Amino acid sequence: MPEEGPGADHEEWLAAFRRACDRIADAAAAMTPDRRREPQGRGAGGDVTVLIDRVAEDVVLEELEALGRPMRVLSEEAGEVVLGGGGADIPLVVVDPIDGSLNAKRGMPLFATSIALSGGPAMGDVTLGLVRDHGTGEEWTAARGRGAWRDGERLAAQPPPDPRRLPVLLLEGATPARVARAAGRLDGRAGRLRALGSLALSLCHVAGGRGDAMAGLGPGRAVDVAAAQLVARETGLLVGMPRVEDLPGVPLDLESRFRVSAAHDGDTIDLLRSLSRR
Amino acid sequence: MPEEGPGADHEEWLAAFRRACDRIADAAAAMTPDRRREPQGRGAGGDVTVLIDRVAEDVVLEELEALGRPMRVLSEEAGEVVLGGGGADIPLVVVDPIDGSLNAKRGMPLFATSIALSGGPAMGDVTLGLVRDHGTGEEWTAARGRGAWRDGERLAAQPPPDPRRLPVLLLEGATPARVARAAGRLDGRAGRLRALGSLALSLCHVAGGRGDAMAGLGPGRAVDVAAAQLVARETGLLVGMPRVEDLPGVPLDLESRFRVSAAHDGDTIDLLRSLSRR
Repeated sequence: MPEEGPGADHEEWLAAFRRACDRIADAAAAMTPDRRREPQGRGAGGDVTVLIDRVAEDVVLEELEALGRPMRVLSEEAGEVVLGGGGADIPLVVVDPIDGSLNAKRGMPLFATSIALSGGPAMGDVTLGLVRDHGTGEEWTAARGRGAWRDGERLAAQPPPDPRRLPVLLLEGATPARVARAAGRLDGRAGRLRALGSLALSLCHVAGGRGDAMAGLGPGRAVDVAAAQLVARETGLLVGMPRVEDLPGVPLDLESRFRVSAAHDGDTIDLLRSLSRR
Repeated sequence: MPEEGPGADHEEWLAAFRRACDRIADAAAAMTPDRRREPQGRGAGGDVTVLIDRVAEDVVLEELEALGRPMRVLSEEAGEVVLGGGGADIPLVVVDPIDGSLNAKRGMPLFATSIALSGGPAMGDVTLGLVRDHGTGEEWTAARGRGAWRDGERLAAQPPPDPRRLPVLLLEGATPARVARAAGRLDGRAGRLRALGSLALSLCHVAGGRGDAMAGLGPGRAVDVAAAQLVARETGLLVGMPRVEDLPGVPLDLESRFRVSAAHDGDTIDLLRSLSRR
Protein backbone atom coordinates (compact mmCIF):
# COMPACT_ATOMS: atom_id res chain seq x y z
CA MET A 1 0.00 0.00 0.00
CA PRO A 2 1.48 3.36 -0.91
CA GLU A 3 2.23 5.64 1.99
CA GLU A 4 -0.39 8.33 2.63
CA GLY A 5 0.58 11.86 3.66
CA PRO A 6 3.91 13.63 3.48
CA GLY A 7 5.89 10.62 4.73
CA ALA A 8 7.35 9.53 8.07
CA ASP A 9 10.78 10.99 7.26
CA HIS A 10 9.16 14.42 7.05
CA GLU A 11 7.09 14.34 10.24
CA GLU A 12 9.83 15.66 12.52
CA TRP A 13 10.54 18.55 10.14
CA LEU A 14 6.87 19.40 9.75
CA ALA A 15 6.36 19.40 13.51
CA ALA A 16 9.18 21.93 13.91
CA PHE A 17 7.87 24.08 11.04
CA ARG A 18 4.42 24.06 12.66
CA ARG A 19 5.71 25.02 16.09
CA ALA A 20 7.48 27.97 14.50
CA CYS A 21 4.33 29.06 12.61
CA ASP A 22 2.19 28.82 15.75
CA ARG A 23 4.63 31.01 17.66
CA ILE A 24 4.82 33.55 14.81
CA ALA A 25 1.02 33.75 14.69
CA ASP A 26 0.95 34.47 18.42
CA ALA A 27 3.72 37.05 18.15
CA ALA A 28 2.03 38.83 15.23
CA ALA A 29 -1.31 38.93 17.04
CA ALA A 30 0.36 40.55 20.04
CA MET A 31 1.94 43.36 17.96
CA THR A 32 0.19 46.49 16.68
CA PRO A 33 1.06 47.44 13.09
CA ASP A 34 3.19 50.31 14.47
CA ARG A 35 5.22 47.86 16.49
CA ARG A 36 5.45 45.32 13.66
CA ARG A 37 7.12 47.86 11.41
CA GLU A 38 9.77 49.18 13.81
CA PRO A 39 12.94 49.21 11.67
CA GLN A 40 15.77 46.82 12.61
CA GLY A 41 18.40 47.59 9.97
CA ARG A 42 18.97 45.87 6.67
CA GLY A 43 18.67 42.09 6.19
CA ALA A 44 20.97 39.84 4.17
CA GLY A 45 18.51 40.07 1.27
CA GLY A 46 18.96 43.84 1.08
CA ASP A 47 15.52 44.94 2.30
CA VAL A 48 14.97 46.88 5.51
CA THR A 49 14.13 44.39 8.25
CA VAL A 50 11.29 45.34 10.57
CA LEU A 51 10.48 43.92 13.97
CA ILE A 52 7.96 41.33 12.78
CA ASP A 53 10.48 39.98 10.22
CA ARG A 54 13.16 39.75 12.90
CA VAL A 55 10.95 38.11 15.52
CA ALA A 56 9.57 35.62 13.01
CA GLU A 57 13.02 34.64 11.78
CA ASP A 58 14.36 34.22 15.31
CA VAL A 59 11.46 31.89 16.09
CA VAL A 60 12.10 29.73 13.01
CA LEU A 61 15.82 29.50 13.76
CA GLU A 62 15.12 28.54 17.39
CA GLU A 63 12.69 25.79 16.42
CA LEU A 64 15.05 24.42 13.78
CA GLU A 65 17.99 24.50 16.17
CA ALA A 66 15.92 22.60 18.75
CA LEU A 67 15.79 19.68 16.31
CA GLY A 68 19.46 19.14 17.09
CA ARG A 69 20.25 18.08 13.52
CA PRO A 70 22.93 19.43 11.22
CA MET A 71 21.44 21.72 8.57
CA ARG A 72 22.00 24.88 6.62
CA VAL A 73 19.27 27.53 6.80
CA LEU A 74 18.75 30.21 4.18
CA SER A 75 16.57 33.05 5.40
CA GLU A 76 15.71 36.48 4.11
CA GLU A 77 17.12 38.53 6.97
CA ALA A 78 19.91 36.38 8.42
CA GLY A 79 21.30 35.01 5.15
CA GLU A 80 22.83 31.54 5.47
CA VAL A 81 23.21 30.01 8.92
CA VAL A 82 24.68 26.60 9.80
CA LEU A 83 23.00 24.74 12.68
CA GLY A 84 23.76 21.50 14.49
CA GLY A 85 27.48 21.53 13.71
CA GLY A 86 27.34 21.51 9.93
CA GLY A 87 28.89 18.80 7.79
CA ALA A 88 28.79 17.57 4.20
CA ASP A 89 25.51 16.75 2.40
CA ILE A 90 23.35 18.26 5.11
CA PRO A 91 19.84 19.44 4.26
CA LEU A 92 19.05 23.04 3.39
CA VAL A 93 16.03 24.76 4.93
CA VAL A 94 14.74 27.77 2.98
CA VAL A 95 12.73 30.24 5.03
CA ASP A 96 10.66 33.32 4.37
CA PRO A 97 9.61 34.23 7.91
CA ILE A 98 7.02 36.75 6.64
CA ASP A 99 5.88 36.63 3.02
CA GLY A 100 3.59 39.57 2.32
CA SER A 101 5.68 41.84 4.50
CA LEU A 102 3.92 45.07 3.45
CA ASN A 103 0.56 43.56 4.41
CA ALA A 104 1.95 42.39 7.75
CA LYS A 105 3.34 45.85 8.45
CA ARG A 106 -0.01 47.48 7.70
CA GLY A 107 -2.02 44.98 9.71
CA MET A 108 -3.64 43.48 6.59
CA PRO A 109 -4.27 39.79 7.37
CA LEU A 110 -2.75 38.56 4.10
CA PHE A 111 0.70 37.30 4.97
CA ALA A 112 2.32 33.95 5.52
CA THR A 113 5.32 32.04 6.81
CA SER A 114 6.98 29.84 4.22
CA ILE A 115 9.47 27.04 5.03
CA ALA A 116 10.94 24.50 2.60
CA LEU A 117 13.32 21.57 2.98
CA SER A 118 15.76 20.85 0.19
CA GLY A 119 18.21 18.04 -0.49
CA GLY A 120 20.31 20.23 -2.77
CA PRO A 121 21.14 23.76 -3.91
CA ALA A 122 18.36 24.31 -6.46
CA MET A 123 14.57 24.71 -6.61
CA GLY A 124 14.18 21.24 -8.11
CA ASP A 125 15.76 19.73 -4.99
CA VAL A 126 12.99 20.92 -2.65
CA THR A 127 11.28 17.89 -1.12
CA LEU A 128 8.96 19.43 1.48
CA GLY A 129 7.16 22.74 1.81
CA LEU A 130 4.87 24.37 4.33
CA VAL A 131 3.04 27.70 3.99
CA ARG A 132 1.02 29.01 6.93
CA ASP A 133 -1.55 31.73 6.16
CA HIS A 134 -1.55 34.00 9.20
CA GLY A 135 -4.83 35.64 8.18
CA THR A 136 -6.98 32.52 8.05
CA GLY A 137 -4.72 30.07 9.90
CA GLU A 138 -4.80 27.74 6.89
CA GLU A 139 -1.77 25.50 6.37
CA TRP A 140 -0.61 24.35 2.95
CA THR A 141 1.93 21.52 2.75
CA ALA A 142 3.52 19.48 -0.03
CA ALA A 143 5.95 16.60 -0.26
CA ARG A 144 7.68 15.89 -3.56
CA GLY A 145 6.06 13.03 -5.42
CA ARG A 146 3.55 12.48 -2.63
CA GLY A 147 1.06 15.32 -3.03
CA ALA A 148 -0.13 18.52 -1.42
CA TRP A 149 -2.53 19.19 1.43
CA ARG A 150 -4.53 22.05 2.94
CA ASP A 151 -5.02 21.61 6.67
CA GLY A 152 -4.17 17.96 6.20
CA GLU A 153 -6.73 17.37 3.46
CA ARG A 154 -5.26 16.23 0.16
CA LEU A 155 -5.58 18.76 -2.67
CA ALA A 156 -7.01 17.26 -5.82
CA ALA A 157 -5.82 18.38 -9.24
CA GLN A 158 -8.18 21.15 -10.34
CA PRO A 159 -10.09 20.91 -13.60
CA PRO A 160 -8.24 23.24 -15.98
CA PRO A 161 -10.15 26.35 -17.09
CA ASP A 162 -10.62 27.14 -20.77
CA PRO A 163 -7.14 28.60 -21.49
CA ARG A 164 -8.72 31.29 -23.66
CA ARG A 165 -10.53 32.76 -20.67
CA LEU A 166 -9.31 32.66 -17.06
CA PRO A 167 -12.18 33.56 -14.71
CA VAL A 168 -9.91 34.59 -11.82
CA LEU A 169 -6.26 35.62 -12.28
CA LEU A 170 -4.04 36.54 -9.33
CA LEU A 171 -1.35 39.17 -9.84
CA GLU A 172 1.63 39.81 -7.57
CA GLY A 173 4.18 42.61 -7.48
CA ALA A 174 1.29 44.95 -8.23
CA THR A 175 2.73 48.42 -8.74
CA PRO A 176 0.51 50.66 -10.88
CA ALA A 177 2.93 50.73 -13.82
CA ARG A 178 3.30 46.94 -13.94
CA VAL A 179 -0.42 46.38 -13.46
CA ALA A 180 -1.33 48.88 -16.18
CA ARG A 181 0.91 47.06 -18.66
CA ALA A 182 -0.33 43.62 -17.66
CA ALA A 183 -4.03 44.42 -17.42
CA GLY A 184 -4.05 45.97 -20.89
CA ARG A 185 -2.85 42.64 -22.29
CA LEU A 186 -5.40 40.63 -20.30
CA ASP A 187 -8.57 42.22 -21.64
CA GLY A 188 -10.66 39.37 -23.00
CA ARG A 189 -8.34 36.75 -21.47
CA ALA A 190 -9.20 37.13 -17.77
CA GLY A 191 -12.49 37.75 -15.98
CA ARG A 192 -11.44 39.21 -12.68
CA LEU A 193 -8.06 40.20 -11.29
CA ARG A 194 -6.99 39.73 -7.71
CA ALA A 195 -3.88 41.20 -6.10
CA LEU A 196 -3.30 39.99 -2.55
CA GLY A 197 0.31 40.93 -1.90
CA SER A 198 1.81 37.54 -1.02
CA LEU A 199 3.50 35.41 -3.69
CA ALA A 200 3.36 32.31 -1.53
CA LEU A 201 -0.34 32.67 -0.75
CA SER A 202 -1.25 33.42 -4.37
CA LEU A 203 0.49 30.22 -5.48
CA CYS A 204 -1.30 28.22 -2.79
CA HIS A 205 -4.69 29.71 -3.65
CA VAL A 206 -4.27 28.67 -7.29
CA ALA A 207 -3.23 25.20 -6.08
CA GLY A 208 -6.47 25.13 -4.10
CA GLY A 209 -8.55 26.04 -7.16
CA ARG A 210 -9.43 29.49 -5.83
CA GLY A 211 -7.91 31.17 -8.85
CA ASP A 212 -7.13 29.86 -12.33
CA ALA A 213 -3.58 31.14 -12.64
CA MET A 214 -1.13 33.56 -11.03
CA ALA A 215 1.47 35.92 -12.44
CA GLY A 216 4.24 37.66 -10.53
CA LEU A 217 4.80 41.00 -12.27
CA GLY A 218 7.84 41.90 -10.19
CA PRO A 219 11.00 39.98 -9.33
CA GLY A 220 10.50 37.07 -6.95
CA ARG A 221 13.14 35.35 -4.84
CA ALA A 222 13.76 31.73 -3.95
CA VAL A 223 12.79 32.22 -0.30
CA ASP A 224 9.35 33.58 -1.32
CA VAL A 225 8.34 30.59 -3.37
CA ALA A 226 10.43 27.53 -2.42
CA ALA A 227 7.60 25.98 -0.40
CA ALA A 228 4.60 27.25 -2.39
CA GLN A 229 5.94 26.18 -5.79
CA LEU A 230 5.94 22.59 -4.51
CA VAL A 231 2.35 22.94 -3.28
CA ALA A 232 1.38 24.19 -6.74
CA ARG A 233 3.35 21.57 -8.68
CA GLU A 234 2.10 18.70 -6.53
CA THR A 235 -1.47 19.58 -7.60
CA GLY A 236 -0.41 19.30 -11.24
CA LEU A 237 0.07 22.99 -12.01
CA LEU A 238 2.88 24.23 -14.21
CA VAL A 239 5.13 26.77 -12.47
CA GLY A 240 7.40 29.06 -14.47
CA MET A 241 10.54 30.78 -13.13
CA PRO A 242 10.18 32.36 -15.67
CA ARG A 243 9.94 29.31 -17.99
CA VAL A 244 8.71 25.97 -16.67
CA GLU A 245 12.01 24.36 -17.68
CA ASP A 246 13.98 26.97 -15.69
CA LEU A 247 12.47 26.01 -12.34
CA PRO A 248 14.59 22.97 -11.42
CA GLY A 249 17.82 24.93 -11.81
CA VAL A 250 16.85 28.12 -9.95
CA PRO A 251 19.47 28.52 -7.21
CA LEU A 252 18.26 28.53 -3.62
CA ASP A 253 20.02 31.76 -2.70
CA LEU A 254 19.16 35.36 -1.82
CA GLU A 255 20.60 36.91 -4.97
CA SER A 256 18.55 35.39 -7.78
CA ARG A 257 15.52 37.29 -9.02
CA PHE A 258 12.98 35.83 -11.44
CA ARG A 259 9.36 36.17 -12.55
CA VAL A 260 7.05 33.47 -11.18
CA SER A 261 3.85 32.25 -12.79
CA ALA A 262 1.56 29.27 -12.36
CA ALA A 263 -1.11 27.90 -14.67
CA HIS A 264 -2.68 24.70 -15.95
CA ASP A 265 -1.11 24.84 -19.42
CA GLY A 266 1.96 26.08 -21.23
CA ASP A 267 0.11 28.58 -23.43
CA THR A 268 -1.13 30.38 -20.33
CA ILE A 269 2.36 30.36 -18.80
CA ASP A 270 3.59 32.01 -22.02
CA LEU A 271 0.84 34.64 -21.80
CA LEU A 272 1.62 35.35 -18.14
CA ARG A 273 5.37 35.61 -18.86
CA SER A 274 4.62 38.19 -21.53
CA LEU A 275 2.79 40.41 -19.04
CA SER A 276 5.95 41.74 -17.46
CA ARG A 277 7.71 42.52 -20.74
CA ARG A 278 7.92 46.17 -21.70
CA MET B 1 -20.34 60.41 30.95
CA PRO B 2 -20.82 59.65 27.26
CA GLU B 3 -21.96 56.16 26.43
CA GLU B 4 -19.20 53.80 25.27
CA GLY B 5 -19.78 51.26 22.50
CA PRO B 6 -22.54 51.10 19.92
CA GLY B 7 -25.34 51.92 22.41
CA ALA B 8 -27.88 49.90 24.41
CA ASP B 9 -30.59 50.43 21.78
CA HIS B 10 -28.40 48.58 19.29
CA GLU B 11 -27.43 45.58 21.40
CA GLU B 12 -30.44 43.47 20.50
CA TRP B 13 -29.92 44.10 16.79
CA LEU B 14 -26.20 43.37 16.98
CA ALA B 15 -26.83 40.13 18.82
CA ALA B 16 -29.17 38.98 16.03
CA PHE B 17 -26.71 40.08 13.32
CA ARG B 18 -23.96 38.13 15.09
CA ARG B 19 -26.01 34.97 15.42
CA ALA B 20 -26.70 35.12 11.70
CA CYS B 21 -23.00 35.62 10.87
CA ASP B 22 -21.96 32.74 13.11
CA ARG B 23 -24.43 30.43 11.38
CA ILE B 24 -23.33 31.59 7.91
CA ALA B 25 -19.70 30.93 8.81
CA ASP B 26 -20.61 27.40 9.90
CA ALA B 27 -22.68 26.78 6.77
CA ALA B 28 -19.92 28.07 4.48
CA ALA B 29 -17.31 25.91 6.20
CA ALA B 30 -19.47 22.84 5.65
CA MET B 31 -19.86 23.43 1.88
CA THR B 32 -17.31 22.62 -0.80
CA PRO B 33 -16.90 25.31 -3.47
CA ASP B 34 -18.82 23.06 -5.90
CA ARG B 35 -21.74 22.96 -3.51
CA ARG B 36 -21.56 26.69 -2.71
CA ARG B 37 -22.04 27.57 -6.36
CA GLU B 38 -25.01 25.34 -7.18
CA PRO B 39 -27.34 27.68 -9.11
CA GLN B 40 -30.67 28.59 -7.52
CA GLY B 41 -32.24 30.89 -10.12
CA ARG B 42 -32.09 34.66 -10.32
CA GLY B 43 -32.33 36.94 -7.25
CA ALA B 44 -34.28 40.18 -6.95
CA GLY B 45 -31.08 42.09 -7.71
CA GLY B 46 -30.80 40.39 -11.11
CA ASP B 47 -27.73 38.22 -10.45
CA VAL B 48 -27.83 34.43 -10.50
CA THR B 49 -28.27 33.22 -6.93
CA VAL B 50 -26.13 30.28 -5.87
CA LEU B 51 -26.60 28.00 -2.90
CA ILE B 52 -24.33 29.87 -0.50
CA ASP B 53 -26.16 33.16 -1.24
CA ARG B 54 -29.52 31.47 -0.66
CA VAL B 55 -28.50 29.71 2.55
CA ALA B 56 -26.91 32.86 3.95
CA GLU B 57 -29.94 34.99 3.21
CA ASP B 58 -32.32 32.46 4.76
CA VAL B 59 -30.22 32.48 7.93
CA VAL B 60 -30.30 36.28 8.18
CA LEU B 61 -34.06 36.41 7.61
CA GLU B 62 -34.63 33.73 10.24
CA GLU B 63 -32.53 35.51 12.85
CA LEU B 64 -34.21 38.86 12.12
CA GLU B 65 -37.68 37.29 12.26
CA ALA B 66 -36.81 35.73 15.63
CA LEU B 67 -36.46 39.25 17.05
CA GLY B 68 -40.27 39.49 16.76
CA ARG B 69 -40.12 43.17 15.82
CA PRO B 70 -41.74 44.89 12.86
CA MET B 71 -39.18 45.71 10.19
CA ARG B 72 -38.56 45.83 6.48
CA VAL B 73 -35.59 43.88 5.12
CA LEU B 74 -33.84 44.65 1.84
CA SER B 75 -31.68 41.80 0.65
CA GLU B 76 -29.89 41.00 -2.58
CA GLU B 77 -31.71 37.78 -3.45
CA ALA B 78 -35.13 38.12 -1.81
CA GLY B 79 -35.69 41.80 -2.52
CA GLU B 80 -37.85 43.57 0.08
CA VAL B 81 -39.49 41.50 2.82
CA VAL B 82 -41.72 42.74 5.66
CA LEU B 83 -41.31 40.98 9.01
CA GLY B 84 -43.11 41.23 12.35
CA GLY B 85 -46.38 42.48 10.88
CA GLY B 86 -45.13 45.66 9.24
CA GLY B 87 -46.45 49.15 10.06
CA ALA B 88 -45.48 52.78 9.50
CA ASP B 89 -42.03 54.13 10.37
CA ILE B 90 -40.54 50.70 10.97
CA PRO B 91 -36.77 50.23 10.64
CA LEU B 92 -35.15 49.01 7.45
CA VAL B 93 -32.47 46.30 7.59
CA VAL B 94 -30.17 46.20 4.55
CA VAL B 95 -28.45 42.85 3.98
CA ASP B 96 -25.76 41.51 1.71
CA PRO B 97 -25.65 37.88 2.83
CA ILE B 98 -22.42 37.22 0.90
CA ASP B 99 -20.29 40.16 -0.27
CA GLY B 100 -17.43 38.85 -2.38
CA SER B 101 -19.65 36.22 -3.96
CA LEU B 102 -17.14 35.16 -6.63
CA ASN B 103 -14.53 34.53 -3.93
CA ALA B 104 -17.01 32.54 -1.86
CA LYS B 105 -17.93 30.44 -4.88
CA ARG B 106 -14.28 29.68 -5.60
CA GLY B 107 -13.42 28.91 -1.98
CA MET B 108 -11.24 32.01 -1.64
CA PRO B 109 -11.53 33.11 2.00
CA LEU B 110 -12.17 36.77 1.13
CA PHE B 111 -15.90 37.26 1.56
CA ALA B 112 -18.17 38.80 4.17
CA THR B 113 -21.69 39.19 5.45
CA SER B 114 -22.89 42.78 5.68
CA ILE B 115 -25.95 43.93 7.66
CA ALA B 116 -27.04 47.53 8.28
CA LEU B 117 -29.90 49.10 10.21
CA SER B 118 -31.50 52.25 8.85
CA GLY B 119 -34.07 54.68 10.19
CA GLY B 120 -35.02 55.84 6.70
CA PRO B 121 -34.85 55.16 2.97
CA ALA B 122 -31.37 56.55 2.19
CA MET B 123 -27.70 55.81 2.91
CA GLY B 124 -27.49 58.79 5.27
CA ASP B 125 -30.16 57.21 7.48
CA VAL B 126 -28.04 54.13 8.32
CA THR B 127 -27.41 54.09 12.09
CA LEU B 128 -25.74 50.71 12.64
CA GLY B 129 -23.57 48.44 10.53
CA LEU B 130 -21.87 45.09 10.95
CA VAL B 131 -19.48 43.38 8.53
CA ARG B 132 -18.22 39.87 9.32
CA ASP B 133 -15.11 38.71 7.46
CA HIS B 134 -15.61 34.97 6.91
CA GLY B 135 -11.93 34.46 6.02
CA THR B 136 -10.42 35.79 9.25
CA GLY B 137 -13.52 35.86 11.47
CA GLU B 138 -12.96 39.56 12.12
CA GLU B 139 -16.04 41.64 12.89
CA TRP B 140 -16.32 45.32 11.97
CA THR B 141 -19.14 47.36 13.53
CA ALA B 142 -20.14 51.02 13.53
CA ALA B 143 -22.88 53.10 15.14
CA ARG B 144 -23.64 56.54 13.73
CA GLY B 145 -22.08 59.30 15.81
CA ARG B 146 -20.61 56.78 18.24
CA GLY B 147 -17.68 55.25 16.41
CA ALA B 148 -16.48 52.06 14.80
CA TRP B 149 -14.95 48.90 16.20
CA ARG B 150 -13.02 45.83 15.07
CA ASP B 151 -13.74 42.82 17.26
CA GLY B 152 -15.03 45.22 19.89
CA GLU B 153 -11.93 47.40 19.91
CA ARG B 154 -12.54 51.02 18.96
CA LEU B 155 -10.96 52.06 15.66
CA ALA B 156 -8.95 55.25 15.94
CA ALA B 157 -8.87 57.76 13.11
CA GLN B 158 -5.84 56.88 10.97
CA PRO B 159 -3.12 59.43 10.27
CA PRO B 160 -3.76 60.56 6.69
CA PRO B 161 -1.08 59.60 4.14
CA ASP B 162 0.57 62.21 1.96
CA PRO B 163 -2.25 62.68 -0.60
CA ARG B 164 0.33 62.88 -3.40
CA ARG B 165 1.41 59.29 -2.77
CA LEU B 166 -0.80 56.48 -1.43
CA PRO B 167 1.37 53.57 -0.29
CA VAL B 168 -1.44 50.98 -0.54
CA LEU B 169 -4.55 51.48 -2.68
CA LEU B 170 -7.35 48.92 -2.80
CA LEU B 171 -9.28 48.46 -6.04
CA GLU B 172 -12.64 46.74 -6.45
CA GLY B 173 -14.58 45.67 -9.53
CA ALA B 174 -11.23 44.63 -10.98
CA THR B 175 -11.85 43.55 -14.57
CA PRO B 176 -8.73 43.82 -16.77
CA ALA B 177 -10.15 46.70 -18.85
CA ARG B 178 -11.09 48.77 -15.82
CA VAL B 179 -7.84 48.02 -14.02
CA ALA B 180 -5.76 48.90 -17.09
CA ARG B 181 -7.45 52.29 -17.32
CA ALA B 182 -7.17 52.97 -13.59
CA ALA B 183 -3.63 51.72 -13.08
CA GLY B 184 -2.32 53.87 -15.92
CA ARG B 185 -3.59 56.95 -14.09
CA LEU B 186 -2.14 55.86 -10.75
CA ASP B 187 1.52 55.64 -11.75
CA GLY B 188 3.39 57.89 -9.34
CA ARG B 189 0.30 58.31 -7.15
CA ALA B 190 0.08 54.86 -5.55
CA GLY B 191 2.76 52.46 -4.30
CA ARG B 192 1.05 49.08 -4.37
CA LEU B 193 -2.36 47.99 -5.58
CA ARG B 194 -4.52 45.42 -3.88
CA ALA B 195 -7.65 43.84 -5.34
CA LEU B 196 -9.45 41.55 -2.89
CA GLY B 197 -12.88 41.15 -4.45
CA SER B 198 -15.14 42.39 -1.64
CA LEU B 199 -16.30 46.02 -1.56
CA ALA B 200 -17.35 45.75 2.08
CA LEU B 201 -14.04 44.27 3.22
CA SER B 202 -11.98 46.78 1.23
CA LEU B 203 -13.84 49.65 2.92
CA CYS B 204 -13.29 48.07 6.34
CA HIS B 205 -9.59 47.47 5.70
CA VAL B 206 -9.10 51.15 4.84
CA ALA B 207 -11.04 52.08 7.99
CA GLY B 208 -8.59 49.89 9.91
CA GLY B 209 -5.57 51.63 8.39
CA ARG B 210 -4.55 48.59 6.30
CA GLY B 211 -4.80 50.58 3.09
CA ASP B 212 -4.71 54.30 2.41
CA ALA B 213 -7.74 54.53 0.13
CA MET B 214 -10.09 52.36 -1.92
CA ALA B 215 -11.71 52.79 -5.29
CA GLY B 216 -14.58 50.79 -6.73
CA LEU B 217 -14.01 50.64 -10.48
CA GLY B 218 -17.32 48.95 -11.22
CA PRO B 219 -20.86 49.76 -10.14
CA GLY B 220 -21.63 49.14 -6.48
CA ARG B 221 -25.03 48.69 -4.88
CA ALA B 222 -26.50 49.89 -1.61
CA VAL B 223 -26.58 46.38 -0.10
CA ASP B 224 -22.82 45.96 -0.69
CA VAL B 225 -21.78 49.04 1.24
CA ALA B 226 -24.55 50.13 3.62
CA ALA B 227 -22.75 48.73 6.65
CA ALA B 228 -19.13 49.24 5.59
CA GLN B 229 -19.58 52.89 4.57
CA LEU B 230 -20.58 53.63 8.17
CA VAL B 231 -17.50 51.81 9.50
CA ALA B 232 -15.35 53.93 7.18
CA ARG B 233 -17.08 57.23 7.93
CA GLU B 234 -17.02 56.67 11.69
CA THR B 235 -13.22 56.50 11.54
CA GLY B 236 -13.18 59.91 9.83
CA LEU B 237 -12.78 58.75 6.23
CA LEU B 238 -14.55 60.47 3.36
CA VAL B 239 -16.73 58.09 1.33
CA GLY B 240 -17.89 59.03 -2.16
CA MET B 241 -20.92 57.54 -3.96
CA PRO B 242 -19.56 58.82 -6.29
CA ARG B 243 -19.19 62.30 -4.70
CA VAL B 244 -19.00 62.65 -0.93
CA GLU B 245 -22.08 64.89 -0.98
CA ASP B 246 -24.07 62.23 -2.88
CA LEU B 247 -23.80 59.61 -0.14
CA PRO B 248 -26.59 60.76 2.22
CA GLY B 249 -29.19 60.66 -0.56
CA VAL B 250 -28.26 57.31 -2.14
CA PRO B 251 -31.48 55.25 -2.03
CA LEU B 252 -31.39 52.00 -0.08
CA ASP B 253 -32.76 49.89 -2.92
CA LEU B 254 -31.58 47.18 -5.31
CA GLU B 255 -31.75 49.29 -8.47
CA SER B 256 -29.23 52.09 -7.82
CA ARG B 257 -25.69 51.65 -9.08
CA PHE B 258 -22.84 53.99 -8.19
CA ARG B 259 -19.06 54.13 -7.88
CA VAL B 260 -17.75 53.94 -4.31
CA SER B 261 -14.49 55.36 -3.06
CA ALA B 262 -12.98 56.13 0.33
CA ALA B 263 -10.02 58.31 1.24
CA HIS B 264 -8.74 60.73 3.82
CA ASP B 265 -9.15 63.87 1.70
CA GLY B 266 -11.29 65.30 -1.06
CA ASP B 267 -8.49 65.57 -3.62
CA THR B 268 -7.91 61.82 -3.37
CA ILE B 269 -11.65 61.13 -3.72
CA ASP B 270 -11.57 63.24 -6.91
CA LEU B 271 -8.60 61.24 -8.22
CA LEU B 272 -10.29 57.93 -7.42
CA ARG B 273 -13.56 59.03 -9.05
CA SER B 274 -11.63 59.87 -12.21
CA LEU B 275 -10.24 56.31 -12.42
CA SER B 276 -13.45 54.84 -13.77
CA ARG B 277 -14.03 57.54 -16.40
CA ARG B 278 -13.30 56.58 -19.97
